[in-house]
Amino acid sequence: MEFRLIDRIRERTAQGRDDVHLGIGDDAALLAVPEGQELAVAIDTMVEGVHFLRDTAPADLGWKSLAVNLSDLAAMGATPAWALLALTLPRDASPEARGRFVDDFADGFAQLAQPHRLALVGGDTTSGPLVISVAVHGFVPPGKALHRSGAKAGDLVMVTGALGDAAAGLYVLQHGSQDHRDSAHAAALVERLHRPVPRIAAGLALRDRASACLDVSDGLLADLGHICAASGVGAEIESALLPRSPALLALFDETSARDFALSGGDDYELCFTVPASRAAEVQADLARLGCGATRIGRIVEGAGVRVRGTDGGWLELERQGWDHFAA
Amino acid sequence: MEFRLIDRIRERTAQGRDDVHLGIGDDAALLAVPEGQELAVAIDTMVEGVHFLRDTAPADLGWKSLAVNLSDLAAMGATPAWALLALTLPRDASPEARGRFVDDFADGFAQLAQPHRLALVGGDTTSGPLVISVAVHGFVPPGKALHRSGAKAGDLVMVTGALGDAAAGLYVLQHGSQDHRDSAHAAALVERLHRPVPRIAAGLALRDRASACLDVSDGLLADLGHICAASGVGAEIESALLPRSPALLALFDETSARDFALSGGDDYELCFTVPASRAAEVQADLARLGCGATRIGRIVEGAGVRVRGTDGGWLELERQGWDHFAA
Repeated sequence: MEFRLIDRIRERTAQGRDDVHLGIGDDAALLAVPEGQELAVAIDTMVEGVHFLRDTAPADLGWKSLAVNLSDLAAMGATPAWALLALTLPRDASPEARGRFVDDFADGFAQLAQPHRLALVGGDTTSGPLVISVAVHGFVPPGKALHRSGAKAGDLVMVTGALGDAAAGLYVLQHGSQDHRDSAHAAALVERLHRPVPRIAAGLALRDRASACLDVSDGLLADLGHICAASGVGAEIESALLPRSPALLALFDETSARDFALSGGDDYELCFTVPASRAAEVQADLARLGCGATRIGRIVEGAGVRVRGTDGGWLELERQGWDHFAA
Repeated sequence: MEFRLIDRIRERTAQGRDDVHLGIGDDAALLAVPEGQELAVAIDTMVEGVHFLRDTAPADLGWKSLAVNLSDLAAMGATPAWALLALTLPRDASPEARGRFVDDFADGFAQLAQPHRLALVGGDTTSGPLVISVAVHGFVPPGKALHRSGAKAGDLVMVTGALGDAAAGLYVLQHGSQDHRDSAHAAALVERLHRPVPRIAAGLALRDRASACLDVSDGLLADLGHICAASGVGAEIESALLPRSPALLALFDETSARDFALSGGDDYELCFTVPASRAAEVQADLARLGCGATRIGRIVEGAGVRVRGTDGGWLELERQGWDHFAA
């Protein structure tokens, strides 16, 4: 099976790159890293029933499995180049069903890969439970990568785009009424869950400017907590400043929308810190790139993340992380 | 969960390398490919119940999940450098059981990584069915990699080590009597199943010499078939020449031993082709490296692989591939 399915994926994701000396089809791919560039690599896995619902469209899975990885490159300020795919397909599916799945998956993958000129250079398809692992490779000039560890007291905390949409989209799919699910707002939230847009251009723009950066995959509180832990600082967030989409605010009350924005994962926005003197320039540049950037708080001495409510008092927050469907 | 488990893996697999500028712990690893080297990359997945039995020791899984990937680098003539790990652990296991699994897995992984100075630079742990994906990276001088596509009529077909042991080991585990399973021969076969040794040094020695090379993961007939298809040639194998271990010959009759050697997968020996004029020199070098190399047939005009029996006639063979437990 491996060869035929991987050939179908290869055809649908073809992307000419001079730095791919040998692509899919031998024991390993042969690649040329441009001289004077560091190689940035990451791997992420998506499991049916854990990271996505059972009836998620294969094309959405193709897109998203690449998106969550490109998002890691975005958070490093790296330019995407190549990916490897390990796709485990349900054993009980018919050969035709597997073929259709693979074709649709590859189409969704290619839709996101194409604009980034990312080449799929290796893959492994096996049978078993539905599990998707993607490894990505990108380039970054030495010393220019964005880390989690550089935040300093006094820096501002900012995020790209809007927060909470993906978690709200999942909530709508799982708990929404039919009316709820059919609205244009609901469709917008579900689109954010299924087709997150990795902030590659924003990551590049943040090189030499952000003191720390990561992508919000586990939820703002958990991920900003990683920046604080790695940097040896604390953070104070103003819940009134959290950027939330019109769709989120239309479908949920203020408290729910705030909680989705604080603890919902899967948005793949960038959370970063900048010295106050760079904030205006960064905001202007990220606005030009289309995603925008919002100041949501600041870095302080100490440890941990706390959130001020709209009444000025600190919020008591129970959940700090995003456990996907475990919630 | 991701952070704690991956930290345990990081501690147990620590390997200092100057070319790892940033390892596990940020959004991506940052790596430096030596100037003038191509990067060789591969990914492989192992699924419980498909690629390994349910009660396989975690340390064996750690070793083998790396071994099958290093074997791909060996087959390219590449020197191993870095790996990424995506580990999906059973949802129903207790935190303690998951911790023990991860520790043992990491120890087995480290045992094989250490002698190759391979650094684990990134990882993702999730919950779900037990699935392991590893991606590896190695270096090879430009133009020196071994491909599947260079075999020419007249070349000799050779393999390292012995064939059929891993499949026979699996057979013993699944179908052997208690007496059978307890013998030293059985233990030797099961060791080959659980702890395959990637032929890295042999792959390096074959640069500039082998006209085609791959590793035997799906079974000799299927894999040599890949060389023939990629090279536009056929192959003729002499079953009398197939290298088989004392353990295999002690526990199985001639026909079974031959079939394991022809169709059993998971041995991770290298199968390669060489011009007849280089055969003696290659055999001497690979003997010095400890694995040896045996001439088993030759490349001919045409297509496909056929096998001559000990009586001089062509064998009728039913199975040409290794479907792991599907057989």
